[in-house]
Amino acid sequence: MTRLPEEEHTNKAFGWAARDTSGVLSPFKFSRRATGEKDVAFKVLYCGICHSDLHMVKNEWASSVYPLVPGHEIVGEVTEVGSKVQKFKVGDRVGVGCMVGSCHSCNDCTNNLENYCPKLILTYGAKYYDGSITYGGYSDTMVADEHFIVRIPDNLPLDAAAPLLCAGITVYSPLRYYGLDRPDLHIGVVGLGGLGHMAVKFAKALGVKVTVISTSSNKKKEALGNLGADSFLLSRDQDQLQAAKGTLDGIIDTVSAQHPLMPLLGLLKTDGKLVLVGAPEKPLELPAFSLLQGRKLVGGSCIGGMKETEEMVAFAAKHNIKPDIEVIPMDYVNTAMERLLKSDVKYRFVIDIGNTLKATS
Amino acid sequence: MTRLPEEEHTNKAFGWAARDTSGVLSPFKFSRRATGEKDVAFKVLYCGICHSDLHMVKNEWASSVYPLVPGHEIVGEVTEVGSKVQKFKVGDRVGVGCMVGSCHSCNDCTNNLENYCPKLILTYGAKYYDGSITYGGYSDTMVADEHFIVRIPDNLPLDAAAPLLCAGITVYSPLRYYGLDRPDLHIGVVGLGGLGHMAVKFAKALGVKVTVISTSSNKKKEALGNLGADSFLLSRDQDQLQAAKGTLDGIIDTVSAQHPLMPLLGLLKTDGKLVLVGAPEKPLELPAFSLLQGRKLVGGSCIGGMKETEEMVAFAAKHNIKPDIEVIPMDYVNTAMERLLKSDVKYRFVIDIGNTLKATS
Repeated sequence: MTRLPEEEHTNKAFGWAARDTSGVLSPFKFSRRATGEKDVAFKVLYCGICHSDLHMVKNEWASSVYPLVPGHEIVGEVTEVGSKVQKFKVGDRVGVGCMVGSCHSCNDCTNNLENYCPKLILTYGAKYYDGSITYGGYSDTMVADEHFIVRIPDNLPLDAAAPLLCAGITVYSPLRYYGLDRPDLHIGVVGLGGLGHMAVKFAKALGVKVTVISTSSNKKKEALGNLGADSFLLSRDQDQLQAAKGTLDGIIDTVSAQHPLMPLLGLLKTDGKLVLVGAPEKPLELPAFSLLQGRKLVGGSCIGGMKETEEMVAFAAKHNIKPDIEVIPMDYVNTAMERLLKSDVKYRFVIDIGNTLKATS
Repeated sequence: MTRLPEEEHTNKAFGWAARDTSGVLSPFKFSRRATGEKDVAFKVLYCGICHSDLHMVKNEWASSVYPLVPGHEIVGEVTEVGSKVQKFKVGDRVGVGCMVGSCHSCNDCTNNLENYCPKLILTYGAKYYDGSITYGGYSDTMVADEHFIVRIPDNLPLDAAAPLLCAGITVYSPLRYYGLDRPDLHIGVVGLGGLGHMAVKFAKALGVKVTVISTSSNKKKEALGNLGADSFLLSRDQDQLQAAKGTLDGIIDTVSAQHPLMPLLGLLKTDGKLVLVGAPEKPLELPAFSLLQGRKLVGGSCIGGMKETEEMVAFAAKHNIKPDIEVIPMDYVNTAMERLLKSDVKYRFVIDIGNTLKATS
């Protein structure tokens, strides 16, 4: 008695989905719910490709439900609003990030930390209140409760705004929460990908001194040139590590592969903070002595709440902070995924959904 | 041309020392420097036995120098003060904790965090400014720069005051620094030994709700009864762990053996803090997902600075906080070390140096 995805709801939708753990995406017909009284529906114009999309299409976190329509860096133009929607109207430029639902009553929700709500509903591959599975932004339309809709300021181009909704908030939030947002501070950014390059841009806009830390020396020119980092540290070079020992107030570590923490902890001053925003599958090795000596900490951070996401977008608009993107057509997505796996992108793919997603029938 | 320990300095001294990695302590003649102009010399009356003494006498941290006179929870009565000493006079009740020197000019020192100064000089087994090796409190006399001397308030018994100088400050400092010191909070204390039982007492005096977390169910009565903890959690019991999930604002983890962090991180609320004050030799396993979900952190803390040590002693005196101790004679020390290894003490051995340390010649 399971209905077909295209018959589940009243509104027809079209996108690209992964069907199995191969992760290969192909055209997919489905449907979206009728716009509820607190819902905002919008035509999707752009959607960023996040590294977690890559994990999800292949079920590498063992939580994927197929068919899976990825995408949680979604922007577009409002086409319909529910009768009780207060903040948005047809024609507004808006976006949706990683989440579309939460309980609105727990401690986390009441503290504007919906992202940590135990009942958080992710933008794709999760069960919505009505029991249906959520579909992401690699699709022509989107609908969400207005609480999870973000306004995109006029001076931010829509294509470049998309990655702010996951990559942007993922690095902005820990800079603020862990107090790494003051001009007298010096931080490190480990890994120069979608997250890392945004961390550099936000930190610089906050006046923070930034050292990019990478295993690859060919990132140096980019880091110091285009991105405006203050210095570059090759993490395999013991002499460079030794010379920079005890110089950093904090580190934003964007690496999601297994990697040693000890050299990074050594770079921190007393009370220094190593913040992980990437999540390696296997446990990392934590040398306790390295924390005790100098009262250091290793913390985590995962996206950000809706209030902070709005603040981050406003900050980006004010300081003209834009991700570096490569805009691609929809039918390039599988190639883009392969390139992303090899870190062959500066620094974020954004799918031009509006102009290139064509219904096949 | 190396001088004998008893001829190195002008003032004769006598104590018990370990001579090799067997860790067995035996009577030892040595000497202490003449009281310098900023020095305070005192007759040692009591000295606590810290778990780190056990590691040091056996060279388990690969840093020990023999003969090694341990002891860094030292209290006694001032016998002589240098001409420039301002805060102390003969007859004062004083103590020395884990450190006797630091650079006084680095960021850490100027922020009253001598304990994190890279040039910190430990109370025993370290090289002092004059090149001689420092000797600890298992001895009849002590001398130190007044900066590292702590006044013991009159209402604190000297024997019970001794363990405050290491065990006490080691748990008091992280309660303060990590903000786990407010009456609306609920913390866990892992491990009920010298450090753990003090963590319970300080936290309760600060009005914090305390759950003792232990692998041993026979600690429950002690925890809830004598120590006044609010609840007890058997860390091997999955049902108890599950029931307490997400309930704690912080955890003071005093365990210095290898142990899993994942179950402890699971007990924390959003923004919860797991603070390590024990240092297992091998790296711990850190599951990054457990930090990202709920923006949790694992931090370290190592003793405390002199200013905070004075504050802690004043707090203990005001709130009548005393370690639970077993006072032993000097010649019981090797038996005490064996019992400590088996955690067979409630909760701190304190050597009655004043009455039981007899010179053998």
